[in-house]
Amino acid sequence: MSDTPSSVAPTRAPLNGVNTPVLFATINAVKGTPALAKFQFRASNRWVSGTFSETRVESFSGAGGEHNHVTEFRYAADHPNVLVGEDRAPTPIEFLLHALATCITAGIGNIAAARGITLTSVQSTIEGDIDLQGILGLSKTVRNGYERIRINFDIAGDAPPEKLREIVEQSRARSAVFDVLTNGVPVDVTVNAA
Amino acid sequence: MSDTPSSVAPTRAPLNGVNTPVLFATINAVKGTPALAKFQFRASNRWVSGTFSETRVESFSGAGGEHNHVTEFRYAADHPNVLVGEDRAPTPIEFLLHALATCITAGIGNIAAARGITLTSVQSTIEGDIDLQGILGLSKTVRNGYERIRINFDIAGDAPPEKLREIVEQSRARSAVFDVLTNGVPVDVTVNAA
Repeated sequence: MSDTPSSVAPTRAPLNGVNTPVLFATINAVKGTPALAKFQFRASNRWVSGTFSETRVESFSGAGGEHNHVTEFRYAADHPNVLVGEDRAPTPIEFLLHALATCITAGIGNIAAARGITLTSVQSTIEGDIDLQGILGLSKTVRNGYERIRINFDIAGDAPPEKLREIVEQSRARSAVFDVLTNGVPVDVTVNAA
Repeated sequence: MSDTPSSVAPTRAPLNGVNTPVLFATINAVKGTPALAKFQFRASNRWVSGTFSETRVESFSGAGGEHNHVTEFRYAADHPNVLVGEDRAPTPIEFLLHALATCITAGIGNIAAARGITLTSVQSTIEGDIDLQGILGLSKTVRNGYERIRINFDIAGDAPPEKLREIVEQSRARSAVFDVLTNGVPVDVTVNAA
């Protein structure tokens, strides 16, 4: 998410829409009380029909307490017509691309602010290659998920290109979603059937 | 996504909102021409301010051609207030939970239809534990991403509980998102800086 206060001279003024003083205060608070860093994010999903289902994102815990999002967020997912869905929403696997792009981009905003660099533009394109022989059960050697993901950033701001590249690299190195997608995470699946 | 035609007696009638005949026809078409299974999903993202950015999901390739989604889908992500954002949308990492729940749920719809089982309800709750000391740069041993994800399904339909459990398990075993989240995927990051 950001540099630590010890690794960079804090910029005290808000920048890039980032409240930099609050950012550094947050990091210092967690530094003093590491238990504040324990977060749990949650969602609930309801199947509607076919490949279509809806997710609600409402609350999370962290910073020593329970929090409700400002509003209840709802998102759907579906399969496209060519994959026997009705395309009422993107496929689940497309949301992984959204998660990765937005995670690294949020970090870019924070890190640039921490380094006193004003950004003028950050855009990215992302693509993932997948061979559906895996999920269709037609191959024992083809994996179910993406074989590879590529993301390209176009970044502009009031710093030399090398400094801008370093911001992207630092954000990648600190990205929660990048970590999960590249290193994996244990997932427990339990079922109540009636 | 589904059982193969060889492993189950196809149910010919649409069920659970799944066009089962089209599902089996699709699987057979890919079986005959494996190149049809090569898909590429894409998204583009634009930073707006602070930790807030917007993603567009418009097109993908697969089944031997280019496809546009029925509509252009747009999604935002942000950080909550307690993480120095404005909570204009969920955090990027919450979209991983949405992706996983919707992927396994879509598979449940398809697999149940393929097995001739009518579902009455599929609901899930999902949570991910994360220690933000990682992304805040305050620990060299704490990872950036989730430490563990748990998802629980409540499923009901016109089959014995054991059959319903088997459907969830088969969907998990064929889930593209479950594969990526548990096994990881190579991600290439490139940068154009100006």
